[in-house]
Amino acid sequence: MRVRNRKGAGEMLAENAHIVVENPADFKGRWSERFGNNHPIHIEVGCGKGAFITGMAALHPEINYIAIDMQLSVLSYALDKAIEAGLPNVQMMLVDGAALSEYFEEGEIDQVYLNFSDPWPKARHEKRRLTYKSFLETYEKILRSEGEIHFKTDNRGLFEYSLVSLANYGMELKKVWLDLHQDEEFAPLNVMTEYEKKFSQKGQVIYRLEAKFKKKND
Amino acid sequence: MRVRNRKGAGEMLAENAHIVVENPADFKGRWSERFGNNHPIHIEVGCGKGAFITGMAALHPEINYIAIDMQLSVLSYALDKAIEAGLPNVQMMLVDGAALSEYFEEGEIDQVYLNFSDPWPKARHEKRRLTYKSFLETYEKILRSEGEIHFKTDNRGLFEYSLVSLANYGMELKKVWLDLHQDEEFAPLNVMTEYEKKFSQKGQVIYRLEAKFKKKND
Repeated sequence: MRVRNRKGAGEMLAENAHIVVENPADFKGRWSERFGNNHPIHIEVGCGKGAFITGMAALHPEINYIAIDMQLSVLSYALDKAIEAGLPNVQMMLVDGAALSEYFEEGEIDQVYLNFSDPWPKARHEKRRLTYKSFLETYEKILRSEGEIHFKTDNRGLFEYSLVSLANYGMELKKVWLDLHQDEEFAPLNVMTEYEKKFSQKGQVIYRLEAKFKKKND
Repeated sequence: MRVRNRKGAGEMLAENAHIVVENPADFKGRWSERFGNNHPIHIEVGCGKGAFITGMAALHPEINYIAIDMQLSVLSYALDKAIEAGLPNVQMMLVDGAALSEYFEEGEIDQVYLNFSDPWPKARHEKRRLTYKSFLETYEKILRSEGEIHFKTDNRGLFEYSLVSLANYGMELKKVWLDLHQDEEFAPLNVMTEYEKKFSQKGQVIYRLEAKFKKKND
């Protein structure tokens, strides 16, 4: 997601250090302390303006959520929503998704969400896609045994790529949706992102998958 | 594909025993003899009215094709096309796809095509779907090492199911198309089935995948 630079976004994040974690590496292995409880931790890599994660956090007070984005202005809009909703179970980090293992201990995370990630359509940018092999390796590391990735997008090319990438990494595909909004059973559970609301209204198909890493040997 | 019973279809097949193999089990392990050459053998399980396989056979004289369907009337229409085209590289079998290993030796087949297979949407009919685990086991057995399945359909539910089934069987997904007819590179190679022509004209999305079995240990 690309947005214009927002004036004062940096100050805003700094003033809300109880939500936006300033030195996330300090909490590696200690996120339960930060949240003050032992609830499962779900992260969203590339949270954009935060409608999804704040929506999920409101629906699931028994789960802790960490919203991650590397763009300052984008994260500041997500922060707006978190402040307004006053949710105790949301934290945020302004970091690069490629470096997640610096911030989380092995097995510390219960679930990873990827929503409408940048498709990076050019072949030479494959390594930047959030479902590229090296990212999967990182998710597998920080996730608990049999941890899951839940991914949705309207981008056909990225979804085609991701199905191949996840399957060939050896992940188990739990379920695939090729037109999510046609699924009446899932609809009441589906928290939409800003982007999803806008593009599904225009008749754009939304793709989704749930996939699981193999059981860890421990 | 369901069609009305065609009068004289049985006699027609019997009269063309040089194309429609009467006792296919007799040729198990000896299909090259039947074709009179050692070209690779591709089979289509559920060939319907035969537009795909006769189209492919005309384009690829270096490949032998076997069209398989369990419905007499349907296969008789495919036979019409094969007779008209006078193709030396097409054979046909009126048999059940579940019993393929009775007709082919291990590793005798180079590629399996599944086109617009019956979706069997009810959960209790899962085992009849041509991408159900037991069918994959049969295909793997009769295919050469690293043999491929090429599958296309307009049925969203069946394609969602098949992605999960193939990936979880451990197949490598080579490529996935979520809107085949938008792919300008593939279009000139795409031989359409009767069904595909009709439904894609109505704006129906066509899904496709190519998947590969693991290398055999031998």
